Amino acid sequence: MNLNHKENEKKLYSLLMENLSRVGILDARALNEAQKKLDNLTKPKGSLGRLEELAMQIAGISGRMVSRFDNKTIFTMAGDHGVTEEKVSTYPKEVTPQMVFNFLSGKAAINVLAKHIGAEVMVVDMGVSFDFEDHPFLINKKVGYGTRNMAREPAMTREEAMQSILNGIETCKLATVKKTEPDIGTDIIGTGDMGIGNTTASSAIAAVICDADVADVTGLGTGLNEEGLHNKINVIRKAIKINKPDKEDAIDILAKVGGFEIGGIAGLIIGAAINRIPVVIDGFISGAGALIALKLCPDTKHFMIASHQSVEKGHIAILSKLGLKPLFNLDLRLGEGTGAALGINFAEASLKIMNEMATFSEAKVSGKSE
Amino acid sequence: MNLNHKENEKKLYSLLMENLSRVGILDARALNEAQKKLDNLTKPKGSLGRLEELAMQIAGISGRMVSRFDNKTIFTMAGDHGVTEEKVSTYPKEVTPQMVFNFLSGKAAINVLAKHIGAEVMVVDMGVSFDFEDHPFLINKKVGYGTRNMAREPAMTREEAMQSILNGIETCKLATVKKTEPDIGTDIIGTGDMGIGNTTASSAIAAVICDADVADVTGLGTGLNEEGLHNKINVIRKAIKINKPDKEDAIDILAKVGGFEIGGIAGLIIGAAINRIPVVIDGFISGAGALIALKLCPDTKHFMIASHQSVEKGHIAILSKLGLKPLFNLDLRLGEGTGAALGINFAEASLKIMNEMATFSEAKVSGKSE
Repeated sequence: MNLNHKENEKKLYSLLMENLSRVGILDARALNEAQKKLDNLTKPKGSLGRLEELAMQIAGISGRMVSRFDNKTIFTMAGDHGVTEEKVSTYPKEVTPQMVFNFLSGKAAINVLAKHIGAEVMVVDMGVSFDFEDHPFLINKKVGYGTRNMAREPAMTREEAMQSILNGIETCKLATVKKTEPDIGTDIIGTGDMGIGNTTASSAIAAVICDADVADVTGLGTGLNEEGLHNKINVIRKAIKINKPDKEDAIDILAKVGGFEIGGIAGLIIGAAINRIPVVIDGFISGAGALIALKLCPDTKHFMIASHQSVEKGHIAILSKLGLKPLFNLDLRLGEGTGAALGINFAEASLKIMNEMATFSEAKVSGKSE
Repeated sequence: MNLNHKENEKKLYSLLMENLSRVGILDARALNEAQKKLDNLTKPKGSLGRLEELAMQIAGISGRMVSRFDNKTIFTMAGDHGVTEEKVSTYPKEVTPQMVFNFLSGKAAINVLAKHIGAEVMVVDMGVSFDFEDHPFLINKKVGYGTRNMAREPAMTREEAMQSILNGIETCKLATVKKTEPDIGTDIIGTGDMGIGNTTASSAIAAVICDADVADVTGLGTGLNEEGLHNKINVIRKAIKINKPDKEDAIDILAKVGGFEIGGIAGLIIGAAINRIPVVIDGFISGAGALIALKLCPDTKHFMIASHQSVEKGHIAILSKLGLKPLFNLDLRLGEGTGAALGINFAEASLKIMNEMATFSEAKVSGKSE
């Protein structure tokens, strides 16, 4: 590593630390105010369960009583993976850019579900091995043309790892609008991913951060058979063995066995925390990004909402490490942000409950006998 | 029982049986067509899990490829319960009509969530101890002014039980529109309930039909303390002991330990099956209604979609007996149809997935290597 790289690495590190230092915790006063408001509505206290918890969390995040979401955005972060050389996926790597085009044409699953909930899909090129032309729904945050093959060498340099996180933070900052009066609306974002090979990287991250056996956090991805799964597990074991990621150093883990889009997702989450907006986490790959964010800054957890529990085997370990309980389990295993979209819909329902229901006195309904 | 009652009972029974005989099964051809359509979309096969299952079920129910819901309706069935004399609830029974007014004014939780998903709330007076004036969102299907106290005598007569089911079937028929061209839209309905004391009746039904110990299917309702729960369990035990409901006879069970709104919910489900429209089941009380429907006609099960798993203790036993897997668990315990509303939203998402996504060939995305 020459001097320029060292200097750049130092610069990126201090920029990242500066960002992380701006992550706060939930606002206790807003939490209390939300609790009081919920308890006066015409329903037994707490009877709307996690919808009430969501409304409180959103109040705690934004630090005020928000009554609606002004901008709902799913960021589908895309990147390629050198480890596809090891035949870890049933789909060819060309599918990554092909699916980016599918997202941009508005006909992929994430577009359909985002439209269903009134959200916008922004596709972020974090590191696809293809040059896209400009497009209104594409954000260019390319760190490289795919990672290197982690079964042979580190997937990326430490600089690239930090750059991918910083690019995710930057994406969140640029795309959050916050244009409304402070007492009314807020943004909400959802994370999503696209990248052939990225369950392999995510399983590797989960194995290291959750301190789990690789076989316990490695699943079938888009649809491997038993032989393919066996190979995938061996590839991940090899990648961890030769690269020796330091389990206390999130940047080292991301660099050695991660992916550009996974770093981008970690950055998005950190960006949401900095901007004090809720971030709804999609499934397994987004969960791996969330693990990186958590490792870098445990307080980011307060800003996360786990949407669903994925079919992918390692997701339970990830959710447990994050300390998050998913809102639903629809046996999804697609990614793109599909689960996050449906999760945002629940978050929106919770805001409406808090703001549109009658109180006991307004509705002249008798209270509970004590 | 005098001759008039006997004749009326026979008439109601044959009317009910005639209705039940019209319940069919899922359409195999439509199921296959839906499966094929889903498998060609730009996602790994089956990767949208239960959303794909929902889309298929809806095709099988309607017998054709529906692309949208034309009318989404939540029926919130209300009734009073004589067993409230036994102090089984923390709320006074006056809350039942008060909440009906709250529903009609559009400010209760179910109104907020129905509006969120674009559905209408129809309140059905199945047996509230109050005379309501006409209202565009109120359907008068009153069977009586609340049930009798099941801890002392049967909650209703066999005639009343059958009438409540028939009134539910009638409600569904009247309210389902089916106005669109046959190949485009369909209706979907959700069940909901309001009735102080109705978790007591529902636990009694669950204990009998699921062959469970009363304590295992009796929960805190709107918020009992330990002493209150103990009393509630004893009241239910007593009701079952003195009334001796025949566990093979759904009408007998409903009559002796049920409720008018629970019979109405059973009827709604049967009505949905007859009209071949999907019915989304809310929580614990709706589950008790579904048990009655299932017992009367096992094929009604194919038309049911279980929305959520409730906090109420006996709900797991009910779902297990129904053989249904809920879509989500948000720790809800409010009823009204709140969970059903969110479930309808998932069902609608599933239709959009099937109809709006690009196929692999349309999007020029490479398929899986075999």
